[in-house]
Amino acid sequence: MEYKQLNTHSAIEYLKQIKEIMKFFNNDDINVEEIGDGNLNFVYIIKSKNDKAKALVLKQAVPYLRCVGEEFPLSRERMTYEIRALKKFYKIFPSFVPKVYHASEDMSLVVMEFLDNHIIMRKGLIEAKQYKNFAEHISTYMAATLFYTSSLALKSSDKRKLIDEFNGNTELCKLTEDLVFSFAFMQHETNDNENVLDNENAIKLFNDMDFKKNVLELKYKFMNQSDALLHGDLHTGSIMINENETYIIDPEFAFIGPFGFDIGALLANLVNNYIYHTIVTKDEIYKSWLLELIRNILEKFSKKFLNFWVEYKESALFVKSYADEETLNEYKKDFILNILRDSLGFAGCKMARRVYGVAGVEEIRGIKNHILRKEAEVMALSIAREFVMKYKTINNINNIVEMIKNVR
Amino acid sequence: MEYKQLNTHSAIEYLKQIKEIMKFFNNDDINVEEIGDGNLNFVYIIKSKNDKAKALVLKQAVPYLRCVGEEFPLSRERMTYEIRALKKFYKIFPSFVPKVYHASEDMSLVVMEFLDNHIIMRKGLIEAKQYKNFAEHISTYMAATLFYTSSLALKSSDKRKLIDEFNGNTELCKLTEDLVFSFAFMQHETNDNENVLDNENAIKLFNDMDFKKNVLELKYKFMNQSDALLHGDLHTGSIMINENETYIIDPEFAFIGPFGFDIGALLANLVNNYIYHTIVTKDEIYKSWLLELIRNILEKFSKKFLNFWVEYKESALFVKSYADEETLNEYKKDFILNILRDSLGFAGCKMARRVYGVAGVEEIRGIKNHILRKEAEVMALSIAREFVMKYKTINNINNIVEMIKNVR
Repeated sequence: MEYKQLNTHSAIEYLKQIKEIMKFFNNDDINVEEIGDGNLNFVYIIKSKNDKAKALVLKQAVPYLRCVGEEFPLSRERMTYEIRALKKFYKIFPSFVPKVYHASEDMSLVVMEFLDNHIIMRKGLIEAKQYKNFAEHISTYMAATLFYTSSLALKSSDKRKLIDEFNGNTELCKLTEDLVFSFAFMQHETNDNENVLDNENAIKLFNDMDFKKNVLELKYKFMNQSDALLHGDLHTGSIMINENETYIIDPEFAFIGPFGFDIGALLANLVNNYIYHTIVTKDEIYKSWLLELIRNILEKFSKKFLNFWVEYKESALFVKSYADEETLNEYKKDFILNILRDSLGFAGCKMARRVYGVAGVEEIRGIKNHILRKEAEVMALSIAREFVMKYKTINNINNIVEMIKNVR
Repeated sequence: MEYKQLNTHSAIEYLKQIKEIMKFFNNDDINVEEIGDGNLNFVYIIKSKNDKAKALVLKQAVPYLRCVGEEFPLSRERMTYEIRALKKFYKIFPSFVPKVYHASEDMSLVVMEFLDNHIIMRKGLIEAKQYKNFAEHISTYMAATLFYTSSLALKSSDKRKLIDEFNGNTELCKLTEDLVFSFAFMQHETNDNENVLDNENAIKLFNDMDFKKNVLELKYKFMNQSDALLHGDLHTGSIMINENETYIIDPEFAFIGPFGFDIGALLANLVNNYIYHTIVTKDEIYKSWLLELIRNILEKFSKKFLNFWVEYKESALFVKSYADEETLNEYKKDFILNILRDSLGFAGCKMARRVYGVAGVEEIRGIKNHILRKEAEVMALSIAREFVMKYKTINNINNIVEMIKNVR
């Protein structure tokens, strides 16, 4: 089918021809309504006219950045990778990924489960909501998606097939290379330049060559370390959550990259929230909960990742009877530590880039009071710098938690 | 064109239809003669009947390992990657790569320059020949092929295209994973088992868990570090040489892998030759020459790699004006050191695997006297172990040379 951009009318025509969709709606008449998704794509809610509880979401990519307009072209093939990643992750752990009812790479669209009882996690965190299952859920999601798409689980040939499927996500990887690892640390037109000009902290950051040298190392890892299939943009805005459930959405940045990048993205966003509650709400109870959450996530992730590994005595990496259990366990321990170290480094880059780069986070750039915002920026940069400068030398999860706590 | 396996008669028919070939021979009548190439493929020499000096080589892959027979299937698509790599490397530095006159991925064949004034370098080294230009040539070849196919030179999108072109070389990468990094260090049917049984040194190696843990790290790098397009099997049997010229042939193992793997392969094979001359010929002058050769190659490689980098102020990794010169130079210094460290680790794996694994090297397994052969094996394992255990801590090229010299 040839690509065409849908609207609320043509979407109905299109959907009526898809058997799986009409089956979902019991052949009821349907209604399509556009909702603002924000940045990149067009998003519609499809509802049955007979039973309002029956609903799906349709998401279609257009060949430009939606929030800017046609003058900012961005290939719609990003949806190809979102579709592939959604399906792959759903297969690995269905409870944390919206179910796909229909997808077309030609049309750059996906129709999936409507998550109407969930909110974007970032909003919940800003409101100081405690999600008691989140550490359990996200650690399982990360351990499973990372482990089962790596050379630790896959056969050599299957890993290469996976690389084939995602290697083409060039444009979105390039966005990360530029925005996360480069432009945000130098004078650049994409930055939040009103804030950068004459801001001594910005100038200090841009001249911090020790920091920038380590960022280069981490950028190189991002580009050349093909550990596993990543979500690629795992911040708290990519998580839909309620008391009981957690869904990870929007994997359009999916690619084969370093283990630590997804974990680092999540860590960075939780720390950004910790900064918000330090500077703005001063909610000590919530801050303690956040620190424990971070510790829990990292501990559970490590444990689960290692548990998955126990099942895999043979893989691309391990040949049966190659080494004794003790040696393999030591190897695995070092392996997990290296993942944590890289995660910390990537978290530092991700935090620092949110300060003056394009697309800040609500918790910091959203602070209305200029003095408080600047305080939050300074705190974010201090923690980010600690992360980036010390990522190769931490030895355990406690080191990470202490680092956050001790900055202020 | 559909694949069919050629013979001396059908090869003539095939070649007569290729314009570039007939042009090379001025439309002379041609003669085709099979020569044993050894392991994997069928190789023919094509000669003009009028002018015996005019000759080309035809190499065709068959869907099995030629030296074993049809009972050892090996996909003929390996030739696809050899063709692509030959063309890519020729484009980067034509003086060290045989010129391709015709290639067909469908037919799994390539017709190229006949190197009749050159010998396989391994033979020359065994005869203690000194090649005065070799360090200059091979350092240029390695620096250029590695640098220009990496994210240090390529744009992000071009690097991904390159990965697309070589990602499918699954079978030959799997061979390396198994044979270089696993089977040779454990009881395995593919090993040189007559020598392994009741050999205390073999048993010591197979039980050396510290060594094997580091080999796992290096195997992981081999599988997941996508630095640059590698030759993939750069031993002294893949080099054709004479007084003045050096050609690198047989890149069928080409893939996108870690910088250090090609350099390590070469280093391992030069050290194996050093061991041969230590144990068998006791030729001290040649041994000194070999050590100086190794030092020269590594020094020239480092210098040339860095020189190529000077031209590239912008690439996937470097964004113009991101950091000052001093910082970039420090980053580059660390980068080169890491390449050398990985090279050393890979060299250790490659040396150790040649001792008891399948496909030994002539310099060691070819030693007829059993006592001397065992001495050479012990020496190879000692150096290999030093390399693998210390690869992460060396600080300069001198450390490497001293390590070789001091083992015996």
